[in-house]
Amino acid sequence: MADIDPQGTFNAIEAATGKAMDPGFSQSTTQDVEAACQKAADAFDSYRAMDSDKRAAFLEAIGDEIMALGDKLLERAGAESGLPAARLTGERGRTVGQLKLFAKTVREGHWQGIRIDPAMPDREPMPRVELRTRMVPLGPVAVFGASNFPLAFSTAGGDTASALAAGCPVVVKGHPAHPGTDDMVAGAIAEAARKTGMPDGVFGHVRGTGNDLGAALVKNPHIAAVGFTGSRSGGLALVAIAQQRAVPIPVYAEMSSINPVILMPEALADRGAQLGAGFVQSLTMGAGQFCTNPGLVLAIEGEGLDAFEQAASEALTGHEPAPMLTGGIRKAFAEGTETMASHKGITELACGVSGDGITREAARLFSASAEAFLADPALGAEVFGASSLIVHCKDASELHKVLESLEGQLTATIHMDAGDHEAAKPLIPVLERKAGRILANGWPTGVEVAPAMVHGGPYPSTSDSRTTSVGTLAIDRYLRPVCYQDMPASLLPDALRDGTDLPKMIDGTPA
Amino acid sequence: MADIDPQGTFNAIEAATGKAMDPGFSQSTTQDVEAACQKAADAFDSYRAMDSDKRAAFLEAIGDEIMALGDKLLERAGAESGLPAARLTGERGRTVGQLKLFAKTVREGHWQGIRIDPAMPDREPMPRVELRTRMVPLGPVAVFGASNFPLAFSTAGGDTASALAAGCPVVVKGHPAHPGTDDMVAGAIAEAARKTGMPDGVFGHVRGTGNDLGAALVKNPHIAAVGFTGSRSGGLALVAIAQQRAVPIPVYAEMSSINPVILMPEALADRGAQLGAGFVQSLTMGAGQFCTNPGLVLAIEGEGLDAFEQAASEALTGHEPAPMLTGGIRKAFAEGTETMASHKGITELACGVSGDGITREAARLFSASAEAFLADPALGAEVFGASSLIVHCKDASELHKVLESLEGQLTATIHMDAGDHEAAKPLIPVLERKAGRILANGWPTGVEVAPAMVHGGPYPSTSDSRTTSVGTLAIDRYLRPVCYQDMPASLLPDALRDGTDLPKMIDGTPA
Repeated sequence: MADIDPQGTFNAIEAATGKAMDPGFSQSTTQDVEAACQKAADAFDSYRAMDSDKRAAFLEAIGDEIMALGDKLLERAGAESGLPAARLTGERGRTVGQLKLFAKTVREGHWQGIRIDPAMPDREPMPRVELRTRMVPLGPVAVFGASNFPLAFSTAGGDTASALAAGCPVVVKGHPAHPGTDDMVAGAIAEAARKTGMPDGVFGHVRGTGNDLGAALVKNPHIAAVGFTGSRSGGLALVAIAQQRAVPIPVYAEMSSINPVILMPEALADRGAQLGAGFVQSLTMGAGQFCTNPGLVLAIEGEGLDAFEQAASEALTGHEPAPMLTGGIRKAFAEGTETMASHKGITELACGVSGDGITREAARLFSASAEAFLADPALGAEVFGASSLIVHCKDASELHKVLESLEGQLTATIHMDAGDHEAAKPLIPVLERKAGRILANGWPTGVEVAPAMVHGGPYPSTSDSRTTSVGTLAIDRYLRPVCYQDMPASLLPDALRDGTDLPKMIDGTPA
Repeated sequence: MADIDPQGTFNAIEAATGKAMDPGFSQSTTQDVEAACQKAADAFDSYRAMDSDKRAAFLEAIGDEIMALGDKLLERAGAESGLPAARLTGERGRTVGQLKLFAKTVREGHWQGIRIDPAMPDREPMPRVELRTRMVPLGPVAVFGASNFPLAFSTAGGDTASALAAGCPVVVKGHPAHPGTDDMVAGAIAEAARKTGMPDGVFGHVRGTGNDLGAALVKNPHIAAVGFTGSRSGGLALVAIAQQRAVPIPVYAEMSSINPVILMPEALADRGAQLGAGFVQSLTMGAGQFCTNPGLVLAIEGEGLDAFEQAASEALTGHEPAPMLTGGIRKAFAEGTETMASHKGITELACGVSGDGITREAARLFSASAEAFLADPALGAEVFGASSLIVHCKDASELHKVLESLEGQLTATIHMDAGDHEAAKPLIPVLERKAGRILANGWPTGVEVAPAMVHGGPYPSTSDSRTTSVGTLAIDRYLRPVCYQDMPASLLPDALRDGTDLPKMIDGTPA
């Protein structure tokens, strides 16, 4: 994670070696938090009043400044996270693409939620007033950088992009596992803000180890909402702090998920081995450190499942481990997989090439009967990393029972052939209640940043199932409706005046 | 409120006399709560799978059955609430109209939030998957009847209508102040469900005095969201229970608001006396028992304000008090106004015709300097009933300061003439941060049920500023997005298949 010295600076740890990296970064103080939040509050009214084009240009400029950091950014992010260059190049593309997509979304204007109900002065028994409604931003948003996406879900990541798009100033707490990356990206955002004439305070930034800083940020009365991606314990701690405030605020915490994958009988019979190999690829990608990692496989026992397990075991056995993001994550993975391995209801199917016990850990694959799985809810807990559990069901009814027993998930996946569709049909309503995204014949890792993406789901996969953290729908998290009744045109916000071509509903009908 | 006898039945109290009314109603038990919630959970998948037309027909049938109850419903509601017949006739119209408007909304389909991102199999470097997203209902919703709207915000009121429209079964806890009204309306809903072939459990109903029943309802693991209108203490108690559950759930509590009314100088100079009379009409309507009652008036001192105060005082002095909804509300009003009257920073301007100290209380009007108001936050607390405080500001800067000091509100109102517009302009951004609805030259009481209405606002006016409880936008409170990735057409929900004419976004653009 990070070394702290008595002078209040801390160093990144090189993921591949576990050694401290230069330079040291100064820890932000609670005074720094207060100052950043005050500046964000001061910037709020002027930032949200800027027209959509200016706000969009700011988002695009952030992308440009990130690209202008060049390979140095990728090198630093690679050293701090242990993620390979190709992945980080892709992640940078996603980050910049995400900012551009939000810029497009801001310009398109659907997010403004414009509703106009014209007056009806002659209505009986009472005239109807004129109502004009639009969405306004909540206020300054606190964003917590995520360890597993040093670019796409950290300083200028999805939460920052969606909050800025909504018109909210952002105060980021950089993740202490990648302070160098965080520092470079924070500089890029500040530069973009300067070049596009944004108000001072539209972007604030603090960094440090320990939980006090984040707690101070969420407690600050100027903060109106929180975006977080990380562990369940971390997310729930922030939720509790937010609820105890004099004015409680929403926390959008994307926390834990084991992303069940259901293998239907005909698909298994047809291509069990092929599915096994594809599964291991999804499971081990990025050392398994994805929120959507397939940590649970459900199937009805039989030859197809045997073939799947054999192929998966073979692929996993030869898998070379990659460095994990932080020492803390590695340790939790080692402990979590050991707990699985020593559980009396669990059989270990395969183990990857051994790790070094310092930064790398072997991938692990387990199996259990549905009966054993149902008997111990702890087996449904997330083990963050390349570990998965295959649950053998006796029949469709037992499979159904296992599905109903699951907690809320980000994703649920069904592998099926045409001949499985009839049997898959009754599973869909269950999966709709359990997950935010239902995939057919794919793997849950790899989350498309797009208008229709949902990266969210029922508790505890997130703290708020009504939203998504990836995709343009995320802008809605930071908005609330305000209605203007009989307001003179000169006092209406521009978006609500007559004659705009913004998307709107007139009297409840899209116009 | 209600008399409880040792046999576990309770009686309504006639509002105008304070006397117990026949018949006695049996108290629901926690077993009744469990049974209703279990049935709601069992009905959930089949109810939400019904097509929009059937769901809309159910809502319309509820309205028909309420009308079929005839004058008996109005008479009973009048006796239990003390509200006059004309008001209750109007409220019944609003209730039935609300159900019809939600039926129309369900059919129109915008609420489904359909988003489709077509696959791009040839995209480089990676093909894009197909994503299809729609909103699905959260699950069974607990609705708490409100004392001050025995029809429009109780058993078949706004929360019930919006939750049923979203596809959520509803379990209502009837308000104990109007058990007879509640019983009749619950019967009407059950009859409508039977006639339109709804699944058993789509509507459940419990009743009783005391807080245990409501707590059991919110704690029940089948309940997925809560709709509540009432006091701040009641709403916050439910929020706390919901947050402590193993699976926390959203609570939409519409709580307290003093609905500031700003009188701008030219409007005051032009028509101070006329505004004063209009103000008292809004203040005293329904014995002041509205969430949007104008409990705070802000103006810059001068002749116009003097004329306003004189006219308001005259109108109030002759005001005959009406019975209040419950003994508890009357007592709280008497205490709250006495606290105001004895506050050293407060001057009593006028008092209406005396009440009987049993069911009626005199309306009261107070004034204070901005300095005194700013010095004591307690003066910003809601006194539910016909009581209001006029705050005298020295100048525009002091008025601005008072506005910034306010808690979140349901509404904020500006009375202004054309010559006031320039001075009103800088107030709008402040009011946007403070309130859910901003009115020009009207009075906040009288909430239009319409697609663009917002009856919500920042904490503590509600527990969740991101929504409204009145108007069709309320349907969104009970929905969450689910995304289907590469799903075969035969397994997609009907609304997401090709060829529907439902409103949708294709690749982020309304189509």
